[in-house]
Amino acid sequence: MAEPVRIALLGCGNVGSQVVRLLTEHADDLSARVARDLELVGVAVRDAASPRAGVPHHLLTDDAEALVSRGDIDVVIELVGGIEPARTLVRAAMAHGASVVTANKALMAADGARLHEAARESGVDLYFEAAVAGAIPLLRPLRESLVGDRVRRVMGIVNGTTNYVLDRMDTAGESFDEVLADAQRLGYAEADPTADVDGHDAAAKAAIIASLAFHSRVTADQVEVTGIRGVTSSDIASARAMHGVVKLLAVAERLDEGRISVWVGPTIIPRDHPLGSVHGAFNAVVVEADAAGQLMFYGQGAGGAPTASAVLGDVVTAARNRVQKVVGVGESSYAALAVASPGEAVTRFHLIVDVDDRPGVLAAVAGIFAENGVSIETVRQEIRGEQDAELVIVTHPAPKRSLDATVASLREAPTVRSVVSVMRVEAL
Amino acid sequence: MAEPVRIALLGCGNVGSQVVRLLTEHADDLSARVARDLELVGVAVRDAASPRAGVPHHLLTDDAEALVSRGDIDVVIELVGGIEPARTLVRAAMAHGASVVTANKALMAADGARLHEAARESGVDLYFEAAVAGAIPLLRPLRESLVGDRVRRVMGIVNGTTNYVLDRMDTAGESFDEVLADAQRLGYAEADPTADVDGHDAAAKAAIIASLAFHSRVTADQVEVTGIRGVTSSDIASARAMHGVVKLLAVAERLDEGRISVWVGPTIIPRDHPLGSVHGAFNAVVVEADAAGQLMFYGQGAGGAPTASAVLGDVVTAARNRVQKVVGVGESSYAALAVASPGEAVTRFHLIVDVDDRPGVLAAVAGIFAENGVSIETVRQEIRGEQDAELVIVTHPAPKRSLDATVASLREAPTVRSVVSVMRVEAL
Repeated sequence: MAEPVRIALLGCGNVGSQVVRLLTEHADDLSARVARDLELVGVAVRDAASPRAGVPHHLLTDDAEALVSRGDIDVVIELVGGIEPARTLVRAAMAHGASVVTANKALMAADGARLHEAARESGVDLYFEAAVAGAIPLLRPLRESLVGDRVRRVMGIVNGTTNYVLDRMDTAGESFDEVLADAQRLGYAEADPTADVDGHDAAAKAAIIASLAFHSRVTADQVEVTGIRGVTSSDIASARAMHGVVKLLAVAERLDEGRISVWVGPTIIPRDHPLGSVHGAFNAVVVEADAAGQLMFYGQGAGGAPTASAVLGDVVTAARNRVQKVVGVGESSYAALAVASPGEAVTRFHLIVDVDDRPGVLAAVAGIFAENGVSIETVRQEIRGEQDAELVIVTHPAPKRSLDATVASLREAPTVRSVVSVMRVEAL
Repeated sequence: MAEPVRIALLGCGNVGSQVVRLLTEHADDLSARVARDLELVGVAVRDAASPRAGVPHHLLTDDAEALVSRGDIDVVIELVGGIEPARTLVRAAMAHGASVVTANKALMAADGARLHEAARESGVDLYFEAAVAGAIPLLRPLRESLVGDRVRRVMGIVNGTTNYVLDRMDTAGESFDEVLADAQRLGYAEADPTADVDGHDAAAKAAIIASLAFHSRVTADQVEVTGIRGVTSSDIASARAMHGVVKLLAVAERLDEGRISVWVGPTIIPRDHPLGSVHGAFNAVVVEADAAGQLMFYGQGAGGAPTASAVLGDVVTAARNRVQKVVGVGESSYAALAVASPGEAVTRFHLIVDVDDRPGVLAAVAGIFAENGVSIETVRQEIRGEQDAELVIVTHPAPKRSLDATVASLREAPTVRSVVSVMRVEAL
């Protein structure tokens, strides 16, 4: 057999160690699929002195920069995460002629366009299936299978931690704080859960999905984000009363006039919606296309082995391209659709508003909605106690901006004690 | 822009007319994605004299052979269906230098290996995403995304007609004959429903899926097939009593000793299994891989526009390869796993047996199972009337061969009036 395809790995944690395991255990299969051996020639880690199970000690190095700059690497697998030094390493790898496979959603969502540009200039591949929805093959179908169709909307559960928390709140009736503490104990949530709980992880994935689905450039900071800290047991119960369930959705949608809207937020969807039965830490993404109709992709969104499976799929593709001396399909941003500003996304909303229980309150509240151009679909009034009532309001579709203005006005109104919660409502 | 990519279409029925529509309506998008215009240069139909909406009359021809032999075609789309003349046309197209995109499951399942060989010899692409599960991107993920992983099992609902029938039997409590007649009236089932109802359509798809998933060659005639004609309302009710639901599953599974088993048959699965909630004419396929874990792909398995979406995805890929002057990933059959004989597939089974209601009958029946090496998990005895009882038996996992022998012995036994039904049980 000819020269092997030479691979360098940056980062050897949870995912990296599984990548090494698959490269070793499936070596024969991988060779057959690429028509060359895949040879791991170096593994960059923070502390090269401490041994790693399954990694020959002489492959370890703490000089990642030197590893990617050797000039004889065919494929660099970047599993460092975060923006820096990952970005510098990826760019150095490309400049030295290596194709790059990365699971780095933060980097791709922040700087994807420039990295694609750098890959094009260097004549190398840049693949990142593992950056979104772990093991689920989603980016390749979006990029290649649906390329003859027109995507209208992508709607997904792309963060396992928040789905685990919301699912537990729904099934066990526990509070956000209780479940989060438990999830941290069990390792489903990080010690610092900010990126997950506040929706930033989902927003990065939404930006990547939107870029591919709409052949446009979308960055994480263009995504309107609301996390799940504000979701209460009342919200869960209120959703249940509507035969719905609360999920943290990432949505990218084609608007009229050649624009797209991309947002992440807690959303009530019907319990019998395909996404309604996605439990625990699983991920699922629904794609709606003009001709294909509704498609769903479902699977494990995180974890060492599932993520490593997605990485290896990209590695095999990049390696085959090397062997054939071709470059795969790169970025497609020809449509160049503008991203609507955060206030423009139109959905229905569900609000819980705590008010004084006296005559005229409902009229006053309804008036505030009307003044802000938001039309109410249903109101349910529940008496909570002496002079205390709760209004559960579902609106007709309205722009987020109008809803925000309504909430601001409500907070000023003398009869309103508090706006307890605001969630979106989809497909219900 | 350079020379357009020249496309010929064979067949212009339900799918073909949608392909023409998408090629026309999405022309700008497609050009941007391929970096060339896609030009439809001929459409072969049975009667070129009768006009087709959306197809310029001068493109129509009734001489398909001449069209594919012109020598200036880049991509031939074969939507004729069936083995002949489709096979001859596809081979002629390849011999004259055209890549082929086909939705022809019968042809691929019968003769895939030789067609792949012919494509390799001619240096052209052969793509067939639309042949399995309509719009659902399944073959590409199997071929490319999971290529770094090892697939253990693929289990799917790949025939919409039978799923519609079984779903209606379950939800509306109607009989097979009632629902089938209705489905034919509504156009969900063909006037001659044999290919669907007897499982042959699903078997062809199972063969294609197994070939890709296990990098081996599997033909439709190697698939053990049972259709759904024998499924009764009692079966549906009995499944329901076990919190299960009857689905026509196509299963391809890696056995020990480097062999695979591939079968199609009515099967009881748990109602809360991901495949349990696939309703109506939808398709869904669960893939279980070593590293990726459980993945599911869900969507419309048939219909003009969904199938055309899959065809166009392949056309864009084939066209891009033309422009880049490369050939895509071809057949991968290096693993060359043997297909186990039909009797070897091991599953649990569910039987309904009509017996005389007198002492000793259960012992006699249990003895027959034991003699044939089939272990019983549960038996439920229901008294039907004077001296008439029904045994509902679920076995432990057993090879189909042993179960068949058991059923043959049961039919000989004096106390057994009839073996009313036999179904598999999975994941329950």
